[in-house]
Amino acid sequence: MKKNIASARIDIESSALLKELNDSLPFDKELFREDITGSLAHAKMLTKQGIISQDDWKLIEQGLNELLEEIGQGSVELNGGDEDIHMAIERLLTAKIGDAAKRVHTARSRNDQVATDFRLYVLHNNQEIARLLVELIKSFLSIASKNRDTLLPGMTHLQHAQPINFAYHMLAYASMFKRDFERFISSYKRNNISPLGCAALAGTPHPIDREQTTAELGFKEPSLNCLDTVSDRDFALEILFNISTMMMHISRLSEELILWSTSEFKFVTLSDKHATGSSIMPQKKNPDIPELLRGKTGRVNGNLVSLLTVMKGLPLAYNKDTQEDKEGVFDSVKTAKLSLMVLKEMLDEMKVNKENMENACKKGHLSATDLADYMVKNLNMPFRDAYHLVGNIVNEAEKMNKDISELTFEELHAIDPRFKEDAIEVLNIENSMNARKSYGGTSKESTQKQIEILNSWLESL
Amino acid sequence: MKKNIASARIDIESSALLKELNDSLPFDKELFREDITGSLAHAKMLTKQGIISQDDWKLIEQGLNELLEEIGQGSVELNGGDEDIHMAIERLLTAKIGDAAKRVHTARSRNDQVATDFRLYVLHNNQEIARLLVELIKSFLSIASKNRDTLLPGMTHLQHAQPINFAYHMLAYASMFKRDFERFISSYKRNNISPLGCAALAGTPHPIDREQTTAELGFKEPSLNCLDTVSDRDFALEILFNISTMMMHISRLSEELILWSTSEFKFVTLSDKHATGSSIMPQKKNPDIPELLRGKTGRVNGNLVSLLTVMKGLPLAYNKDTQEDKEGVFDSVKTAKLSLMVLKEMLDEMKVNKENMENACKKGHLSATDLADYMVKNLNMPFRDAYHLVGNIVNEAEKMNKDISELTFEELHAIDPRFKEDAIEVLNIENSMNARKSYGGTSKESTQKQIEILNSWLESL
Amino acid sequence: MKKNIASARIDIESSALLKELNDSLPFDKELFREDITGSLAHAKMLTKQGIISQDDWKLIEQGLNELLEEIGQGSVELNGGDEDIHMAIERLLTAKIGDAAKRVHTARSRNDQVATDFRLYVLHNNQEIARLLVELIKSFLSIASKNRDTLLPGMTHLQHAQPINFAYHMLAYASMFKRDFERFISSYKRNNISPLGCAALAGTPHPIDREQTTAELGFKEPSLNCLDTVSDRDFALEILFNISTMMMHISRLSEELILWSTSEFKFVTLSDKHATGSSIMPQKKNPDIPELLRGKTGRVNGNLVSLLTVMKGLPLAYNKDTQEDKEGVFDSVKTAKLSLMVLKEMLDEMKVNKENMENACKKGHLSATDLADYMVKNLNMPFRDAYHLVGNIVNEAEKMNKDISELTFEELHAIDPRFKEDAIEVLNIENSMNARKSYGGTSKESTQKQIEILNSWLESL
Amino acid sequence: MKKNIASARIDIESSALLKELNDSLPFDKELFREDITGSLAHAKMLTKQGIISQDDWKLIEQGLNELLEEIGQGSVELNGGDEDIHMAIERLLTAKIGDAAKRVHTARSRNDQVATDFRLYVLHNNQEIARLLVELIKSFLSIASKNRDTLLPGMTHLQHAQPINFAYHMLAYASMFKRDFERFISSYKRNNISPLGCAALAGTPHPIDREQTTAELGFKEPSLNCLDTVSDRDFALEILFNISTMMMHISRLSEELILWSTSEFKFVTLSDKHATGSSIMPQKKNPDIPELLRGKTGRVNGNLVSLLTVMKGLPLAYNKDTQEDKEGVFDSVKTAKLSLMVLKEMLDEMKVNKENMENACKKGHLSATDLADYMVKNLNMPFRDAYHLVGNIVNEAEKMNKDISELTFEELHAIDPRFKEDAIEVLNIENSMNARKSYGGTSKESTQKQIEILNSWLESL
Repeated sequence: MKKNIASARIDIESSALLKELNDSLPFDKELFREDITGSLAHAKMLTKQGIISQDDWKLIEQGLNELLEEIGQGSVELNGGDEDIHMAIERLLTAKIGDAAKRVHTARSRNDQVATDFRLYVLHNNQEIARLLVELIKSFLSIASKNRDTLLPGMTHLQHAQPINFAYHMLAYASMFKRDFERFISSYKRNNISPLGCAALAGTPHPIDREQTTAELGFKEPSLNCLDTVSDRDFALEILFNISTMMMHISRLSEELILWSTSEFKFVTLSDKHATGSSIMPQKKNPDIPELLRGKTGRVNGNLVSLLTVMKGLPLAYNKDTQEDKEGVFDSVKTAKLSLMVLKEMLDEMKVNKENMENACKKGHLSATDLADYMVKNLNMPFRDAYHLVGNIVNEAEKMNKDISELTFEELHAIDPRFKEDAIEVLNIENSMNARKSYGGTSKESTQKQIEILNSWLESL
Repeated sequence: MKKNIASARIDIESSALLKELNDSLPFDKELFREDITGSLAHAKMLTKQGIISQDDWKLIEQGLNELLEEIGQGSVELNGGDEDIHMAIERLLTAKIGDAAKRVHTARSRNDQVATDFRLYVLHNNQEIARLLVELIKSFLSIASKNRDTLLPGMTHLQHAQPINFAYHMLAYASMFKRDFERFISSYKRNNISPLGCAALAGTPHPIDREQTTAELGFKEPSLNCLDTVSDRDFALEILFNISTMMMHISRLSEELILWSTSEFKFVTLSDKHATGSSIMPQKKNPDIPELLRGKTGRVNGNLVSLLTVMKGLPLAYNKDTQEDKEGVFDSVKTAKLSLMVLKEMLDEMKVNKENMENACKKGHLSATDLADYMVKNLNMPFRDAYHLVGNIVNEAEKMNKDISELTFEELHAIDPRFKEDAIEVLNIENSMNARKSYGGTSKESTQKQIEILNSWLESL
Repeated sequence: MKKNIASARIDIESSALLKELNDSLPFDKELFREDITGSLAHAKMLTKQGIISQDDWKLIEQGLNELLEEIGQGSVELNGGDEDIHMAIERLLTAKIGDAAKRVHTARSRNDQVATDFRLYVLHNNQEIARLLVELIKSFLSIASKNRDTLLPGMTHLQHAQPINFAYHMLAYASMFKRDFERFISSYKRNNISPLGCAALAGTPHPIDREQTTAELGFKEPSLNCLDTVSDRDFALEILFNISTMMMHISRLSEELILWSTSEFKFVTLSDKHATGSSIMPQKKNPDIPELLRGKTGRVNGNLVSLLTVMKGLPLAYNKDTQEDKEGVFDSVKTAKLSLMVLKEMLDEMKVNKENMENACKKGHLSATDLADYMVKNLNMPFRDAYHLVGNIVNEAEKMNKDISELTFEELHAIDPRFKEDAIEVLNIENSMNARKSYGGTSKESTQKQIEILNSWLESL
Repeated sequence: MKKNIASARIDIESSALLKELNDSLPFDKELFREDITGSLAHAKMLTKQGIISQDDWKLIEQGLNELLEEIGQGSVELNGGDEDIHMAIERLLTAKIGDAAKRVHTARSRNDQVATDFRLYVLHNNQEIARLLVELIKSFLSIASKNRDTLLPGMTHLQHAQPINFAYHMLAYASMFKRDFERFISSYKRNNISPLGCAALAGTPHPIDREQTTAELGFKEPSLNCLDTVSDRDFALEILFNISTMMMHISRLSEELILWSTSEFKFVTLSDKHATGSSIMPQKKNPDIPELLRGKTGRVNGNLVSLLTVMKGLPLAYNKDTQEDKEGVFDSVKTAKLSLMVLKEMLDEMKVNKENMENACKKGHLSATDLADYMVKNLNMPFRDAYHLVGNIVNEAEKMNKDISELTFEELHAIDPRFKEDAIEVLNIENSMNARKSYGGTSKESTQKQIEILNSWLESL
C-alpha cells in the first residue's frame, strides 16, 4: 500500500525529498508519553459517551499501556517509515489490536492531538524548570548565609562603587531567579487549557465530553474556540521567552564568575570538577562552564526568534509551518534544565576567596558617597554641593596615593576644617556597608532580613 | 563651568562625540511626567523623615508642579545641553528654586531614579494596551453577533477544510487577544514593585521610608534587593515580548484581511477610508493598513531581540549598555497602541461580503468529514476505514465535476449502497456547520455560547 | 586514568554535568573528514620541516587514512567518552600507532585545529549551496522558456496591477537566486584563508611553513594575525546570513505557491508526490512543502541570531562560548541544501494552469495604466492628469460591471470624445503585456532577452 | 480636494489613524537628496527620448535644483500633509513650476522611485562606513607601531595563556575591521544596480533609456527583471548584516576596554574626555563609551531581525510591509558611523599603561607552552607527553608560590634532571613572546611584518 495513513486521496508514492522534509518522527518521538496519555483519555471518554464499545476500550487501554512501556524501554522500533509520532503509535496499536485501534481517531484530528501533546509537554516542563529554580535559589541562600561578613566592592560600570557584602550579591541573583520562577508558574496557569476535542478546526458532531478529558489530563478547562486552539502556540512562545530571560540572568552571573576567576580578580575558585584545560597550554585551568552557559544565551534567543518568525502572518487555522514549533522548544527546555543543574552544582562547590574580596575594597574610594552623605546630614549641605566637594577630596587622596578610606582625621581636617572626628568612621569600609540599612540595602541587618523573606517564601511554596 | 552636573571628578570638557553618543535626552524626555512624579514622592518622603525641611519641600513641590505643566505645554526648553531628562529637570528646578533643588537627590541615585521612571511608564502602558485590547475584543464580538449565519469555508493549509460561520472565525481572534490581555495584566501585577530608594546599588544610610514612596506612586511593594533592582529590566523585556506576541496575532489577521480583499476571495471590502491608491496605476485600491500591521511584526520582534542582546552578560549592577533599553520599548509601545486603534477602526467599518463567503463553500468538499462521521455512527465503521472510503467518493464527485455537497442520493447510493437518504442531510453545508455542537465548536449554538462567555468576561473586568 | 587528554593540571574526575554540558562530540563528529584532512596536511608539513621524522609520518599518514575510512563507514565507535571529535581522533590514532600520534599536535592547538576544520566545512558548503542554486535557476529558466505566452495578473499589494507573463514571474525568482549565488561565492572567496599554524593564539616557536598547509588544504593564503584568527567566526556568520536571505526568497515563492494552489486561485497544481492529506478530512490535498519551506525561514533566522548573540562582547581570543557556533551552522546548511533540492523537484513537476491564469487577467482593470500612458503620448496630457482621468473611467466601467479591457470603443468614446479607435488596442491585456518593452520589462521580447542573459551567465560559470 | 495625489479612485477622506500609520515623511525625508537626484536623471532621460519637451525640462531642472537647496537649508516646509517624501517633492515642484512637474512621473512608479532612492542611500553609506573603517584601522596601526615592545598576557577563556605584545593585540582588531571593510565594499559592488525605469512591476511602454539613467546616477548597470527589482531589499539586508558583524567586533573591543579600565586590570586609562561620572558617587569615572558601544550591538541586531522578518513570505511584487525597511537601516547606518568615529577618537587618546601590562605577565605561567615545546625539540618527547610533564612543573611552581618564569635553573633541574641551562631562556616572558616567529605570530618580527602588510594594503586602496 503506497498510500499514507493520513491521506485518503493521494495515490502515488510521495517524493523521497518530501518525506525527508516532512517527517517529524526524529524529533516528535519526544512526545510519545503525552501522545499515549492523550489517546487514553480520549478513548476513555469516547467509551463513556457510547461512541466506542467497552470491548474496544479494553483492547485500546491495554494496547496503549503496553506501547507506553515498550517505547519507554526502547523495545519497539519507531522509525518504520511513519511521518510522525502520532501515526507511528496508531500504526503500532493497529498491529497490536486490529480494528479497535482505528476507532481512537474518532472525533479527533492530528491538529488537536498534536496541540494536546505539545501543550502537556510544555506545561510539565514549566513545572520542572520552576522546581530546578527553587533548588538553585536554595544554593544562593546557602552561600549568602555563610557570607554576611564577606566584604567586596559593589560595582557599577565594572568600576568600584560602594562596599557591599557577598551575601547581598548572591541575594540579587536569588531575587532574579525568583522572578523567573514566577514567570514559569504564571505561564503554566495561564495556558493550562485543554485542546482535546477541537478536532481539525471546528469541533465535532460526535457527542463528546471535553470536560471529562480536561479533568483526566489534569487541565484546568477546555479551550473556548477550536479554530483558535488548533494553531495557538502562545504557550510555546511563552516558555521560550521565559527561558531566554532566565538564561540572560544566568549569562550575567556567568560573566561575573568568569571575571572573578581571572588572575586579576581571584574572588572565587571553581572546583577542578568544573574546570577544563587546554590542548596546548599545560598551565591552563579554564572556566568552561560559565562560558558555555553564557554562550547558551544565543541558542535560546535564536529559538525564540525562530518561532516568532514562523508564526508571523499565518492564516487560520493550522498550517504546516507550525511543525517548526517543536525542535526549538525541546532544545531550549533541555538547555534550561541542564544549565540550572550544572550552575547549582558549580556554585555549591565554588570556593569564595574572602580575603581577596576584602583586599579589593581598598581600591576605588568605595566610601566616597558616605562622606557626601555625612556632609548632608552633619553640615546641612545640599547633596549636590557635598558631592562636588567630595570629588575634590578624592583627588587629594589620589595625590597622596591613598584610598579615601585610608585618610587620617588630620588629613581630612586639613582639606576641610568642618570635618569632625566622626567623619573617619563613615569612611571605614565595613561601616559604610553596614550604614545602608534601608529596606533592600546591603547592611548585614538588611541582608539578614532578605534571607528571611526568601526563606519564608520558599517555605510557602 | 565645564563640569557635568553628574561628575565630581572630571575636569575637562567631554568630547563632542561622547556627548552625541551618550545623550539620551532626545528620547528619554518621554519620561518627564514619571520623573517629576517620582521626585515629588521622594521629596515628600524625605520631608516626612526629617531629611528635608518643610520650607524646602514647599519650594520643591511648587517648582516641580510648575515644571510638570510647563514641560507638558512645551513652554520650557529641554535641549539645554543636559545629558538626560533627569539632569535636565534637576537643572530647571535649581534655576527656579535654588539650593532646595539640590536636596532632592539625597538618598537617591540616577540608577534608582531611572529604574523608577521607566517602570512607571511600562506599568502604565501595560494597562493602556490592555484597555485597547478590550475595545478591540468588543469589535470582534459585535461583528460576531451579526454573523452567526454567515457561512464560510474554514481553512487549514489555506485549503478548504470544513464549513464554519464568520462569527466563529471572529471569535477565534477574540480568544487570541483575550490571552494577550491576560499577559499584559499578569506582567503589570508581577512587576508592580518600587525601585525608589535603592540608590546606586546598595541602598542608603539615610533613614528613608520606602513603603511611603511605594504607596505614593501606586506600587504594590518595594523591591527586595537593591543590587538586583537597579539593573532589573525584566519588566521591559516582558512588555516587548507581550507586544511581539500580540503583533504576531495581528499579523495573522492582517494576512487574512489581505487575502480576503483580493479579487480571488472578495470575502470583505475595506472602507475607502482605510485603502490607498497607486502613484501609477489608476485602478488600484490597496489594503495598506493590514500590510503595514503585518510589517510591524518585524519592528517589534527587532526591539525584543535588541534588549535581550543588550542585557546578555552584563555584570552587576548598572552598566551604561542599559541605556539602550528605552527607545525600543517606546517604539514598540507606540506601535502596539496605534495598531490596536487602527485595527479596531478598520474592522468596525469593514463590509462583510456574505454572499461571496457562502459561494466559496461550494468548493472544496467541505462536508467530507461529516460523511465519514456518518459512516462511523450509522454503519459502525472504524473512523480510519470510513475516512478512506470517503476519499474515494470525493474522487468520484470530482470526476462528475461536482462538490460532494452537490451529490444526489442516487449518485451516493450508486457509489455505495449502504448509504441511506439521511446521508444527504449530513452533506449539506449548513447542516455540516451546525452539527459541530461540541464545546468550542462552530455550530450556531456553540458560537452563541462563546459570545456569551466572552461578554460575561468583559462585564467582569 | 581520570585526567582528560586535554588537561595537564586537573587531577580529579570532571563533574558528570560538566561533561554533558561540555561534550561536543555528538555534533562536531560532523567534522571528522575535515579534522583528518587538516591533521594530514599539518603532519606532512611538520615532516617536511624536520619536526617529525619520516618514519612517524608514514605511521601517521596510514593511521589517519585508515581512520578516515573507518569513521566514514561507521565501523569505529566515536562515543568513547571523548569531549570532542579532535580528541576522539587523537585517541583513536594513538591506539592505532602509539607515540607517533602524540606528535601530530606539535605546533598546533585545538584553537587553530577547530578553526581550520570548521572553516573547511563552511567553505565547502558555500560551494555546494551555490551549485544547488545553479540547478534551481535552471528550473526557473526551463519553466520560463515554456511560458512566455502565459498571461497572468501581475500583483502589487496582492491586488491585480498590470498583466505580465508567467515566464517573467519565474525570471524574477531566477534573478533573486542569482544574487544568492553571488553572495555564497563572494563569501567563499573572502574567507578562503588558512587558520592552521596559529596555535593557541600567538603562533608557535616551531619552524612551521604555513604556506605549505595553506596550499595542501586548498586555501588561498594563511591568515594574517593569529590572535584574530582563532576566534574569527565571520565566515560562519556570513553563511548563516546568506542562508537566511536565501530562505527568505524561498519563503516568498512558497507563499505564492500556497496562494496559487488555493481553490480561489488555482494557478498551479502541485504533483501528488508533493502534497499530503489530513488525518481527519478525507478530501484534503495540502501544499505541505511550500508551507514547510516558508516555516524554515524561522529556523535559519534563529540560527543567525544565535551566533550573533554568542559572539557579542567576547574578549580575545578564544572563549568556550564559541563552541555554540557549530550546531546552528550545521542545521542551517542542511536546511538550505534540502530546501533547494525539494524546491527544484517540486517546480519541475508542478502543473501550470495557463487557462486559469489568463482568466484571472479579466479582473482588476490591469490595463488602466496603459490607458493613462496612451493619453500622455497621444493627447499630450501630463501623466498625473491622465492618471486621474483613467480613475474615473475605471469607476464608469465598474458601474457597467465590466473590466476596463472589455470596454468597446463606443463606450470609451462616450466617456471622453478625445479617445481614438486605437485606444481599444492599448486596453487589450496581451497588448498591454507586450507593450512593456523597456529593459527588464515584461514584454515577450524583453522576457526573451532576460532568458538569454541568464543562459549566458550559466554558461560562463 | 480630499483625494490623495496618489489615488485616482478613492473619493473620501482617509482615516486619521491610517494617515498616522501610513505616513513615512517623518523618516523618509532623509532621502530628499536621492529623490531629487533620481528625478533629475529620470527627467533628463525622458527629455532626450523626446517624452518631455526641452522647455519642460528647463523648468523641471531649475525647480528641482532649487528644491534641493531649499530643503537642504530647511527653508521649505516638508510636513504639509504629504504621505511621503516623493509626494512631498512632487507637490512642491508642482507649486513651483505647474504642469511640467506632473510629467516627471511618466514611465515611473513610486515603486522604482523609492527603490532607487533607498539604494542610492545604502550604496553611498557602504562607502562612507568603509572610509571610516580605514580611518579606524590607521589608529590601530599607529598604536601598534608604538607598542611592539609592550608585553601583555595573551588570554584565552580570560585566563592568562601566552605572552604577546600590545601591537599584536591591536593588529588583531585591525584584521577584523579589514574584513568588515571588505564586506562593505563587496556589498557595494554587488548591489550597484539601477532600479530606475522598472515602473510599478513590469517596465513601461514608453521608449525609455535605462542605460542613460544608470550612467547618470553612477550605477554599474540596470537591473535585469523589474518584477524582482521593485521589491528587492537584499542590499538593505546586507548593510544591516555587515553593520551587525562590525558592531559585534566593536563589542569585543569594548568589552576588553572595560576590563582593561577596571581597578583590577588597569591596562589602559581612557581620557577624561571620554569618561563620565555618577550622580551619587563622587569618586566615579566610568567607561561609558565602550559600554554604550557594546550595547549598540543589540540595537543593530534588532534592526537586522526586523527586516528579515518583514520580508518573510511576501508575495511579488511590492507590498506595503516593505515600508518598514527604512527606519532600521537609517538607525543602523547612523549608529555605525558614530560608533566608528567615537571609537577612533577614544583609541587615539587612550593611555596605554605599559608597566601594568608587563607586571601582569608575571602571573599565569605564560611560558608553560614554551617549556613543553623545548622538551619536544631538545628531548625529542612527543608533544602530548611533554605537555603533561609541564603540568606537573607548574604545580610544583605553585607550591613554591612562584610563576614558572621565575623558576631558577636549580629548581628546574631538581624537578627533572634532563633540563639544561638553556631551558631558563625559554621560560623568560620576552623570549617566549619573541619565539613565536611563525607567520601571523606575536614575535616582534612577525608583528612588524603584519604592520607592513596592512600599511601596504592601506596604500593600495
